[in-house]
Parts: sequence; structure tokens; C-alpha cells
Amino acid sequence: MLQAARRRVPVVAGVAATTIADAVAQVKAYEALGVDGILAILEAYFPLSEDGVVAYFTALANATALPVVLYTNPQFQRSDLTLPAIERLMKVDNIRYLKDASSDTGRPLSIINAVGDRIRVFSASAHIPACVVPRQSVQLYDLCRAGKWEEAMRLQRSLWRINRVFAKYNLAACIKGSLEIQGYEVGAPLPPQTPLSDTGRTEIKAVLADLGAAPIAPPAS
Amino acid sequence: MLQAARRRVPVVAGVAATTIADAVAQVKAYEALGVDGILAILEAYFPLSEDGVVAYFTALANATALPVVLYTNPQFQRSDLTLPAIERLMKVDNIRYLKDASSDTGRPLSIINAVGDRIRVFSASAHIPACVVPRQSVQLYDLCRAGKWEEAMRLQRSLWRINRVFAKYNLAACIKGSLEIQGYEVGAPLPPQTPLSDTGRTEIKAVLADLGAAPIAPPAS
Amino acid sequence: MLQAARRRVPVVAGVAATTIADAVAQVKAYEALGVDGILAILEAYFPLSEDGVVAYFTALANATALPVVLYTNPQFQRSDLTLPAIERLMKVDNIRYLKDASSDTGRPLSIINAVGDRIRVFSASAHIPACVVPRQSVQLYDLCRAGKWEEAMRLQRSLWRINRVFAKYNLAACIKGSLEIQGYEVGAPLPPQTPLSDTGRTEIKAVLADLGAAPIAPPAS
Amino acid sequence: MLQAARRRVPVVAGVAATTIADAVAQVKAYEALGVDGILAILEAYFPLSEDGVVAYFTALANATALPVVLYTNPQFQRSDLTLPAIERLMKVDNIRYLKDASSDTGRPLSIINAVGDRIRVFSASAHIPACVVPRQSVQLYDLCRAGKWEEAMRLQRSLWRINRVFAKYNLAACIKGSLEIQGYEVGAPLPPQTPLSDTGRTEIKAVLADLGAAPIAPPAS
Repeated sequence: MLQAARRRVPVVAGVAATTIADAVAQVKAYEALGVDGILAILEAYFPLSEDGVVAYFTALANATALPVVLYTNPQFQRSDLTLPAIERLMKVDNIRYLKDASSDTGRPLSIINAVGDRIRVFSASAHIPACVVPRQSVQLYDLCRAGKWEEAMRLQRSLWRINRVFAKYNLAACIKGSLEIQGYEVGAPLPPQTPLSDTGRTEIKAVLADLGAAPIAPPAS
Repeated sequence: MLQAARRRVPVVAGVAATTIADAVAQVKAYEALGVDGILAILEAYFPLSEDGVVAYFTALANATALPVVLYTNPQFQRSDLTLPAIERLMKVDNIRYLKDASSDTGRPLSIINAVGDRIRVFSASAHIPACVVPRQSVQLYDLCRAGKWEEAMRLQRSLWRINRVFAKYNLAACIKGSLEIQGYEVGAPLPPQTPLSDTGRTEIKAVLADLGAAPIAPPAS
Repeated sequence: MLQAARRRVPVVAGVAATTIADAVAQVKAYEALGVDGILAILEAYFPLSEDGVVAYFTALANATALPVVLYTNPQFQRSDLTLPAIERLMKVDNIRYLKDASSDTGRPLSIINAVGDRIRVFSASAHIPACVVPRQSVQLYDLCRAGKWEEAMRLQRSLWRINRVFAKYNLAACIKGSLEIQGYEVGAPLPPQTPLSDTGRTEIKAVLADLGAAPIAPPAS
Repeated sequence: MLQAARRRVPVVAGVAATTIADAVAQVKAYEALGVDGILAILEAYFPLSEDGVVAYFTALANATALPVVLYTNPQFQRSDLTLPAIERLMKVDNIRYLKDASSDTGRPLSIINAVGDRIRVFSASAHIPACVVPRQSVQLYDLCRAGKWEEAMRLQRSLWRINRVFAKYNLAACIKGSLEIQGYEVGAPLPPQTPLSDTGRTEIKAVLADLGAAPIAPPAS
């Protein structure tokens, strides 16, 4: 991925682990490969105390000079980042971003009110998989930055169809399948996750085509 | 409440029931009292099928000529309004509004995309109890209508403190307690719900004062 | 129901309410009708503190001289009886029974260990609707009382088929439908709960027949 | 552990993975070490279809000649074994056991009724950590095998205190801490899981002593 990026865009590597030791080893390996940042995920089997959660992200960030993004998704992770935990983690210098995928309207507001002057908050609650509609996602970002909120809302509403169709199938299969439709040979998800079905592929292809995100020219394979 | 309103603002009565018969009786009683609309809530003990949910709201709306607001709050209700159920309920003429308190960022978007040309959608996910900050809430609405989104966001961020402090205490106690602070003698919540504690009262009073929503003149007791 | 029972068996009336006032009114009405006991359920819309939960059941029990059964079913009720709440409620003289429908293997053990010398605990976790297999349920009870655990287990395993088939359909519909199959004209569940489908009726009838719980003689219609 | 066991008791290794490839690699490594069986856990991040779940356990079992225990614990795992999935997995020869830690009273009954003639079912719902009370657990097993159900129940009730005190602290910390109390130098749980606090240690030590499971002689440190 670093070779494909050729430093034209920053590459942020995802780290997910159950133990601090494993997380730190992953961080060091990614840093050695030359990534530009770390997105940090905590996988838990048994429930963890807030102290344990804070210890995990602190140790992970201390293991690298790279900037770190905290990632929180209560739907898929067993241990959520509470607001007090986030406030404590603000003392770690290189924790500089937070990606909130909670779906909860008010949570980004609470986070921004609490620590918004210290870090940058990504609201992943928009739930539109940017990697399969990259140009449209940049356009959405630019419209918001320019304060063109009505145009942004119109674009968000049209892009929302991807979210709806992705919700019908396995998420990893949808991402992989969309990229394959667009000509990127990324293969199927790792088993036991199942690949996109033919029905899913047809439906997603139609949505991507409507949004101008399916390939017009033959894919650059 | 109708007497207090003196027709200066519309009064919308909330109906919540487990059976259709009870809901219809409540609707007819409120209509006889002269309310301007019905906010319809489904209380379920056993899980209900989508057919049952649709039958409930349809029967309730058919029992009155008043406009009906569907209300959905998956946190407090056992039976949620699915998107297909909402689409089926669009065939009922006097179902004209939907208040979504799901907290889910994307859900209002899905609803608006599906039925937004047919009904008006209230996003209760803003989670700011308008009844205790009425002037500020109207101001927030006006700013949004005028497209002044940055000012609206600043106001929303400051009002958000009410949501945070309400989340620390029992919701009914907070509403009742805030209104008492403002000089409205509404009494305590119905037992076994507990009234606002002294600590809660002090904390909420300070937030309301900061927002210009505590009484300046002595309350009209 | 009292007329049908003709005092041959005790009749225990279920009380479910959101407010103490409503619960107390129900209790007094049932007591006036001559029931033998009260099964007490707490319906909550907003979450309740433990103090609120204890206040509800205490007030309800204080309103009557009848013995009271606490009923807890975390699947269908929004407010659960915690172990500390149960321990506090043991100070109320006429709270003499607890019916636990938590499905949790260990919970009855925790309750019995904590308060088992003070009240009688019904484990509703067996989840076999006794009212549609009354003779078999009494037989199961007698086998357990006699310490014939292996026979009891064989019977429980055969009766378990009712639980499995009930789980496929709406519970109220299954109870009502089973009683209708057995010749008791109890009618359909209150709408919006839907009556038993023809498929459900056929399937349940076959299970009841296998268990010797379908009518042999024509129903006494 | 294999060295410690010296073949006096069988050693069953736990395998937990997100991908089939990782699970198969773990299985082969454990088989090479000489374990006697595999306890198979599925860790999922995104939700999995039933086909995916069945594929995971099938591939894992096909990778070894050792007997396999399916392990299901809906509290800690994101993907549960449904009854239809269990029935499909019965076609795999060396899947010979199932350990159900669902806490649900009825679930073992459903499983035994469906596949009880094909595999052995362990009910982990008893929730007493046998490794810290091994003699008492064997005694409980022997009493049940002998049909001495009342004695077994008395023992289970006394052992239940361990479950209650473990529920107050982090589970891994309790297991490790109990073994340390008993003189086994197993160390602390892997961070970010926190070790047993002094309060927890004191409380657990008292319970173990009451049950005759704390060391009488000084620990063999």
C-alpha cells in the first residue's frame, strides 16, 4: 500500500490488538515500514476497566513518534472509549485525532466540546465508505469547508445510497467487491468472511454507476 | 395545558398504549378536549411483528381527523419503527410528521430519503429539551432556516451543556426540576420516579443561568 | 376467572404499572374482587434508580394484606430487580414469593443463597407455559418434590418442545391459540398483537397432541 | 502446561481467531506440541453469516485429527453458535464436544435435545471456575454422576460464592490471583488487563479458605 501510495497521500496503518505487547509490536513494525500515522483500535475479550483502556492507548502511543488516531466503534468493539477516558488520553502528546464511528449524533458534539481544541475529530458516523467513492468524498469535504451546506447535504443524500446497500451485505465483502468492480484486484475478504454474492455485486455496481463511481474505461489492471 | 396555551401555540397530546383499543380511546378523549395534534407512541410488552406495529399506528390515526406525529425512541420503547414500517404508514393520510429520537445520525437521512417528500421529519436526536430553553430553541431553529449554520452550531454547542447535565440525572426529574427553577409549579415526577436532588437542582440551575434560561425576576409563584 | 376457579385453586392477579398510584389502584381493585395474591410487575419508560424500584414494590405491597409475588423478566421489562433491591424488599412482610424469568442459570442460585430462607423462589426459567400443559406440569413438580430427578429430566426434555415451538411465534398468540385448541374459548390476543397463524396452529396442535395435552373429546364449546 | 501435566490429565488447548487461516495455524501448532484436544473459539469483528460460522469451525476441525470442543459464550464473543449452526457442525466427525457458557437455562436443553446423542455437552453455565477449586469440582461431578442431587446442590450453593466474588472483579485477574494465592506462580494477566487489587485478593482468599481451597501449608514458592 505504501508502494502504491508513492507518498502522494499519507498512509495511516490500523493497529488492533488484545494485549499492549501485541499492539506495541504492530506499531513498531508499521513505523519501520514507513507509514505516516497509526489508527489505534482496542480489541477486548473480557470487559476492561477505564484504567486498562487508558493504559492500552497510552502505551501504544508512547511506542511511536507517529501521530495516533483513536478509533472507537461501539458496534464492533467490545470496549468503548468513554468521555473521561478520552479526556485522560489528551495528555498523550502524539494522540492527535479521534475517529468516532458511534452513529450517535450527540457524541461527536460532546467530544468536541470536551477536547475539540486539543485534537481533530473525524465523524465516521457519516457512514459513507469513502474509499469506494473517493472523488465524491473529497467533494463533500470541500463543500463543507466552503460552508456550502445545502449542496453538501444534497451530495450526502445521494451518497447515502451506498450506505443503505452496504448495510444489506457483509461490510468487508462490500468494500472488497466495490473495489473489484472499480478495477482494483483486491481479492475476497479473508474467510470465514464470505465474498460478495452475485446479487450484491449487481446491486452495488448499479449504485456506484449512478454515483459516477464505477469505471467507465476498462479497469487499469 | 390547553387553557394555559390559549390557542397561542398548537398543543400536541402524547398517546402511549399497549393495545389499539386503549390508544384509540386516548386519541378520542384528547380530540374532544380540543388538542391540535397527536404524538403517537407504541408501548409493547411482548415483541411485535411489523404488521402489528403498522396496525397500531394505522388504527390510531384512523380514529381521528387530527394530524398525527409518529414518535420513535428505541432507547425507551420496546418496539421500533423500521424503515419498511414507516413506508407502509405513509399511506395513512393524517400521519404527517415523524419525530425520530434514535440518536442515530444516519437514520433521519434514511427516513428523509425514503419519505421526506410525504411527511415532515423532526430530528429529536439533537437531544436538547426545548421546553426548558424555549427562546434559545426557537433561535436555533431560525438560524437553521436562515442557513446560518456556523452560528447555529455555536448555539447548539452551548445548549449541549443541558443535554450533558440532564444525562446525569433522571430525565423526568430534570424537566420538572428545570420548570420549577423557572417558576412554573409543575410538581415532582410521578413516583416511583424520584424528584431532582438538591445537587442536581444546583447544577442545573447554574447551567440554565449561564444560558439565560433561569428566571431573572422572581418566579410568578 | 375467579368464578371459573370456584376457589378450587388460588387465583393470583397480575399487576403491571408505570406509576405507584396506578399499581396501588389495581391492587385494591383485585383485592376487592377476592383474589388470593398479587403478582407484581414494574413497567418503566425512563430508567429507574434502585430506590425507585424498591419504592414501587414496597408501596404496592403495603396497599394490600394479600401475599405478593415479585416478578422479574429482564427480556420484557425495562427495569430489572437487582440482588440488592431484592434484599431490601425482603423487609416487607407480605412480599413472600419471587418469580424469576431471567433465563439466567445462576441468578436463581444467587437469589436463593441471599434470601432463600425468607421467601419462596419460582424459577420461571424452565420456560414451559404451564397453563397449556397443566397436568404434565404438576407431574413435573411432583417428580422434583419426590427427588426423582432423572424422570423429571425426561419429562422436562419432552415438554421442552412446547418452548421451542412457542419461540417461533408471538407468545400471547401461542397461549391463546393453545387454549383454543384445547376447547377454551379465550379469543385472540388484544390487537395489535396478532392471533396465531394457521401454520402455527397446526404445528402447536401436533406438539400438544404428542404430549397428551390436546383435547381427546370434542371441546366443550 | 504439557510438561506440568506429564500426561496425568488430558490437556485441551484453546484456539481463538478471526480468520480460518490463523485458526488452522494455531491448531497445527498445538497438535505438534502434543495436546489432547482443541477448544475452538471464533472471534469476529464484523458480524458473520451462519455459513461463515460453520465454515470456520469445519475448517478448524478438518485441520486436525484431535477431538474438538465447540465453545460458545455470547457474553464475550461477537458471533454466537445458533442451533442450526450446531446441527450442521454435527456432520464433522471430530467435533465431539460443546461447551455452552450462555448462562441461558434452556439453551443446553435445546442443544441436548437436538444433538445430545451425537456429542457431549458441557454446561459452563454453572460458572464456577473449576481450576481454582479442582477437588471440589470433581466432587460436584461425582455427586451428580451418582445421582446424589441434593448433596450436589448443597455443594454447588457453597461453591457459588466464588462466582459472586469473581463477578466483582476482572475475571482473568481473579483466576490468576486465586492461583497465586494457592501457591502457583502464574503471574498477572496480560496488560491492559489489570491485576487483582489488594481488596480483591483479601476477599477471594477468605472465600477460598472457607471452601478449603486456600493453601494450608506455605505455598511452594
